[in-house]
Amino acid sequence: MRDDAKTPERHAYRMAKKQEIMQQRIARADKDQGILLVLTGPGKGKSSSGFGMLARALGHGMKVGVVQFIKGAFSTGEDAFFRDQPNVDYHVMGEGYTWDTQDRERDVAAAGAAWEIARAMLRDDSYHMVLLDELNIALRYEYLDLDRVLDDLQNRPAMQHAIVTGRYAPKQLIELADTVTEMKVVKHAFKDLGVRAQKGVEL
Amino acid sequence: MRDDAKTPERHAYRMAKKQEIMQQRIARADKDQGILLVLTGPGKGKSSSGFGMLARALGHGMKVGVVQFIKGAFSTGEDAFFRDQPNVDYHVMGEGYTWDTQDRERDVAAAGAAWEIARAMLRDDSYHMVLLDELNIALRYEYLDLDRVLDDLQNRPAMQHAIVTGRYAPKQLIELADTVTEMKVVKHAFKDLGVRAQKGVEL
Repeated sequence: MRDDAKTPERHAYRMAKKQEIMQQRIARADKDQGILLVLTGPGKGKSSSGFGMLARALGHGMKVGVVQFIKGAFSTGEDAFFRDQPNVDYHVMGEGYTWDTQDRERDVAAAGAAWEIARAMLRDDSYHMVLLDELNIALRYEYLDLDRVLDDLQNRPAMQHAIVTGRYAPKQLIELADTVTEMKVVKHAFKDLGVRAQKGVEL
Repeated sequence: MRDDAKTPERHAYRMAKKQEIMQQRIARADKDQGILLVLTGPGKGKSSSGFGMLARALGHGMKVGVVQFIKGAFSTGEDAFFRDQPNVDYHVMGEGYTWDTQDRERDVAAAGAAWEIARAMLRDDSYHMVLLDELNIALRYEYLDLDRVLDDLQNRPAMQHAIVTGRYAPKQLIELADTVTEMKVVKHAFKDLGVRAQKGVEL
């Protein structure tokens, strides 16, 4: 399915569609619009930044959706905090990936089920913001079909913001995005000195 | 005061102190410790990331302090959201800088008063995390004495996390920090096309 999706026709179709959207956006340049934001790179702060934007949206009274594509990769602090807030619809991908057992079929099924939840949010304009945390990892391992993900992102409601986090954002996603930040490690002291991951921060 | 603080003696003193702390940290490498994290660079997501970490800390039941060194530079979404949370002590620097009138004395006084609040948090181990949002800007314009800020950060309680955000982190702060992330702009579409800043995200 990935290979099929990479055909020149498919690419041309998407680029034409993107151009159309670009032209619409330019035409209404003083209007509001939903932003597709990608937070990637090896530095710390990608998911935190997504969750910070979520908090800001909540401060504006917006309704937000979250799908976490890596279960427990992180501290569960966000989970505990955001689940209890009003206007938050929060999902964590079931079971997590089988890094150890490498049961690929199970991983594909789990990621696919999580994407169905994400997709429903991306078709529902009552969500003002959708955070797809660590989606890039699911794409990196090809647990999800990239073209389907890109189509669903592109076809979301015009006013809806979408935020995608995770290392290794695919270049097609970067092309589609409005704003992309790469988080670079300037310094990561004590990484090899055995200091434990600390609650509330990533080391 | 800045010039005086840059003397070789002052630098040697701080480096010796840092070395001592480094050695202590290495000695207890399997222990918990407070992290000094700096989020800098031109890309979007610095403050958001700090606020996301704040949310995570709150999810862990921690008590947090926030001092914002730029008033209203941002949407006030965080403010509205975090002010109402339990365990949050939230301060915004009074009045804001006089970018237009360039009343430097007033700016220095406002930043200094904000630092006094920050400093009190940095001396109080009941705060598990202190977020110093956009502090780097106050340092950049030399509204605060860098050495005083560095000393207060260095002398904070051993278990307390401190997060400093803003472009142009001074190199002495980067030296002192445990972890530093630089946010790089990969893409910032529509910046020049007149799309307005959107609630809940930075464009």
